[in-house]
Amino acid sequence: MDHALSTQMIFDRGERLFAASRVLSFDGTTIRAHSFAETAARARRLAGALAALGHPSGEPVATYCWNTPAHLEAYLAVPAMGAVLHTLNVRLPADQIRYIMNHAADRALIVDGVLLPAVAPILTECPALGHVIVVGQAPAAIEGFAGKVHAYEDLIANAAPMQEWPELIETDAAAICYTSGTTGLPKGVVYSHRSVYLHSLASMAADTFAISNRDRILMVPPMFHANAWGMPYSGWLAGSDLILPGPHLQSTHLARLIAAERPTLMAAVPTILNDLLQAHAQTPLDLSSFRTIVSGGSAVSAALIDRVKAAWGVNVVQGWGMTETSPMCVLSFPPRETGEEGETPWRAKAGRPVPGMQVRIVDDEDRPLPEDGAAMGHLQLRGPWVTGGYLKERPEDSRLTADGWLRTGDVGRIDPLGFVEVTDRAKDLIKSGGEWISSADLENAIAALPGVAEAAVFAIPDPRWEERPLAVVVAEANLELVPAALRNCLRERFARFMIPEYWAFADFIPRTSVGKYDKKTLREQFDTGGMAVIVETGFTSGD
Amino acid sequence: MDHALSTQMIFDRGERLFAASRVLSFDGTTIRAHSFAETAARARRLAGALAALGHPSGEPVATYCWNTPAHLEAYLAVPAMGAVLHTLNVRLPADQIRYIMNHAADRALIVDGVLLPAVAPILTECPALGHVIVVGQAPAAIEGFAGKVHAYEDLIANAAPMQEWPELIETDAAAICYTSGTTGLPKGVVYSHRSVYLHSLASMAADTFAISNRDRILMVPPMFHANAWGMPYSGWLAGSDLILPGPHLQSTHLARLIAAERPTLMAAVPTILNDLLQAHAQTPLDLSSFRTIVSGGSAVSAALIDRVKAAWGVNVVQGWGMTETSPMCVLSFPPRETGEEGETPWRAKAGRPVPGMQVRIVDDEDRPLPEDGAAMGHLQLRGPWVTGGYLKERPEDSRLTADGWLRTGDVGRIDPLGFVEVTDRAKDLIKSGGEWISSADLENAIAALPGVAEAAVFAIPDPRWEERPLAVVVAEANLELVPAALRNCLRERFARFMIPEYWAFADFIPRTSVGKYDKKTLREQFDTGGMAVIVETGFTSGD
Repeated sequence: MDHALSTQMIFDRGERLFAASRVLSFDGTTIRAHSFAETAARARRLAGALAALGHPSGEPVATYCWNTPAHLEAYLAVPAMGAVLHTLNVRLPADQIRYIMNHAADRALIVDGVLLPAVAPILTECPALGHVIVVGQAPAAIEGFAGKVHAYEDLIANAAPMQEWPELIETDAAAICYTSGTTGLPKGVVYSHRSVYLHSLASMAADTFAISNRDRILMVPPMFHANAWGMPYSGWLAGSDLILPGPHLQSTHLARLIAAERPTLMAAVPTILNDLLQAHAQTPLDLSSFRTIVSGGSAVSAALIDRVKAAWGVNVVQGWGMTETSPMCVLSFPPRETGEEGETPWRAKAGRPVPGMQVRIVDDEDRPLPEDGAAMGHLQLRGPWVTGGYLKERPEDSRLTADGWLRTGDVGRIDPLGFVEVTDRAKDLIKSGGEWISSADLENAIAALPGVAEAAVFAIPDPRWEERPLAVVVAEANLELVPAALRNCLRERFARFMIPEYWAFADFIPRTSVGKYDKKTLREQFDTGGMAVIVETGFTSGD
Repeated sequence: MDHALSTQMIFDRGERLFAASRVLSFDGTTIRAHSFAETAARARRLAGALAALGHPSGEPVATYCWNTPAHLEAYLAVPAMGAVLHTLNVRLPADQIRYIMNHAADRALIVDGVLLPAVAPILTECPALGHVIVVGQAPAAIEGFAGKVHAYEDLIANAAPMQEWPELIETDAAAICYTSGTTGLPKGVVYSHRSVYLHSLASMAADTFAISNRDRILMVPPMFHANAWGMPYSGWLAGSDLILPGPHLQSTHLARLIAAERPTLMAAVPTILNDLLQAHAQTPLDLSSFRTIVSGGSAVSAALIDRVKAAWGVNVVQGWGMTETSPMCVLSFPPRETGEEGETPWRAKAGRPVPGMQVRIVDDEDRPLPEDGAAMGHLQLRGPWVTGGYLKERPEDSRLTADGWLRTGDVGRIDPLGFVEVTDRAKDLIKSGGEWISSADLENAIAALPGVAEAAVFAIPDPRWEERPLAVVVAEANLELVPAALRNCLRERFARFMIPEYWAFADFIPRTSVGKYDKKTLREQFDTGGMAVIVETGFTSGD
């Protein structure tokens, strides 16, 4: 008889052992604290309320919320009571939300009052939806919506707490998160109870996030995307304090939260770190309370890692993962043989697989390639918290190989020590004269050049070479950059054919709803002639 | 599709990512180093050799070894190839080994050459046994043994390495370890692949053993008992250096290993720590390389914890577990609100459940008791690496409750923060005039008194009170102790009826094969009149 792995174990441990740990929430003005004991009690009432509304076991409860206490309560209550937490990305356009809610057949929706106007119009087109639960100011009704509208606080105030959890099978769905759909329709990644528990336990490992009872976690990644790196669950399991910034992710707000609460751990996309560094350049910030900052979502450059270290003495640990991997998969701890000086090149790689995960590179026929740091191939991965598939997936759409490896759509290298380097999304690779050019390598190198704030590189058609790289560069304020000089700086690191001759300058680079460079939009700008492209084949010196 | 949890994941990760990590072994004179790469290569050959001998999948390979490289190779190879590692306790008498080997139906045995004489005579009475593989000097034959005798080194030198592991089901048995059988016949605890992986992953958690790539683990607990606290697997999974002392556990040997290899982590029973402290009192030892020492197996007193901290500045983390819990179950990290000064009382408790484990106290009818730090009850536990049962167990012998809790046979308290205190084995509790007296509480208190080296307390029959405690005390060298004075010192902490009036003095306290006080032998000494008992009802002062 094996004890089922479940989110109930997570709920119960945080509630029982860490009653005094704190959930801190920020409304832009005030920081409020709730104990784990209060939070658990409220979550048990939420579970009781949903059961009283007749919510069926195994069916999804959607959330459309920022990182707030109510969202955390939903994280805890919904899977523990046997329902399925479905986090909706508040940055998606309404028609995608409608598609996703109908695809998942959401029965209930918990929505931040401030976000209700964005989603209310499409709720009338979600026939399965019976209940909308509004956190904060709730209207009596939503125009055209036939279901019931509830105020969150009233609902839980009047509910009896659910004291006994139902028995679950560990492979039951606990949560769903739709991928942002850079190609095709959004797909619902299903996390089982087993997978959430395993990911949480693995997140506590000393060589991963090392989440512990002594941590105070600043929860920057949105809880509507890949479970916020799993930290609502791992932090609760460990009894860490959880600091929830709501929608207040601007660097002034984060700086204030950091000063007040002295967090020890944060996960953040590079953009957030860049924002904080820029704010720091204006008025010095003290981020020395962090034992580690985990970053990922897009490639974290050596330059950024060095700047964070120089500014605050804090190590950035880079990670690479996907919604499909819960998302922790590889993390960039330098090998132990490395001295402090030699660390950055290791930290600038995606990292090594955490315990349980495996990564390989294969050719177009799924044949493994050498892991020599040179061969580039399609990255595939497998492990105990990789999703088994997508919600209502057609077998022919499966991204798994016959032997259970997930095709990531990313391309990269693996070195002899097992460090993974993700060079590109397969579709972002540039095939020039039969050779692959890595846009990520170019982006990192260009972004590290003096005067460059950020850089995106993508393929444009070329009559001779089939494809060539185009670099879009954002210069630091009041600086003018010269392509020939930039090209010159790249000569040491890149073969000549890899260096872009097509350059464009922009005020900012558009990003997707999850903070990645939006190359689709860049390509459209280029295709429609909305981008001023400079062609430069020379260098400032020599040759 | 869920990715199966298995020891193969452990094997592959250590081999792939940490080729340069080291296995260090000590023969009493020399320390030898093997890389993980070499060790893995040898283990693959061992797997190939066992397969070539026709060893059937799912059947046990026994080991009768100290903590040696060959033993580690067996840990890695045997479960990964689909066979079952069966570790035999080399401290058990031969007739128990015979019973256990026949009960498990061991097909092959890997035995240290130096230990062969102890076990050779009974091998003729193990009909299932086909192969004996001798590490070191191997005889051509074993008298009366019909099977084959192999030299370990020859066998693996001639074998083809097993490159592909067979596919496993995660609930398949990976290992068996028989409990030492303080009551009844020894019982074979079965560890599944799933359980070994989960225990290893949990052992890496920051709030448990925190085993990491940067650790150098001194492997003191015998690998023939409860998988040496799981550290051969968790250390390999993390890529820690593993320091194997062989049979050389005397403090002079350990001191030498510590000086040479500067280990960061060790698990050890209190006896080992007492030995090291005594050696330190003669010639100062430097144990400052340890980030933590984990101790357990028997209760770790506050006095011992303080002495280790005072001597070397190292924190002792106490643990309580069982062979049935792999063994990690609860660990004594002080709650984070505690300052450095207030830590010892917390560290002197057994601790709080690690992530995934649950502990409760119940009355004689399995009804939960309040967790108020006062109520004492039967300790029951459950979790994902608690054994599902014993090998060839009859259903009526199950120690599981209907709802899946394991009856530990221990008695204790749980406080509001969830800290477990194990007061006694149920059978070691003293029932005096209808009240329970904890022998462990008395042992800890008496051991902490000045002049006392150690103390064991057990129940003896009493005409009036039914049972009364008898304290057996070992005085420090050249000291004479007076029962009335000892009784006096106990008055502050114990109700009068709890203080023993029966006292005996001894040169040492007998211990079981796994280092616990052997109360069976003490009781026999008492029953047969082999113990000089002093009856003292007075005190040295007051009343």
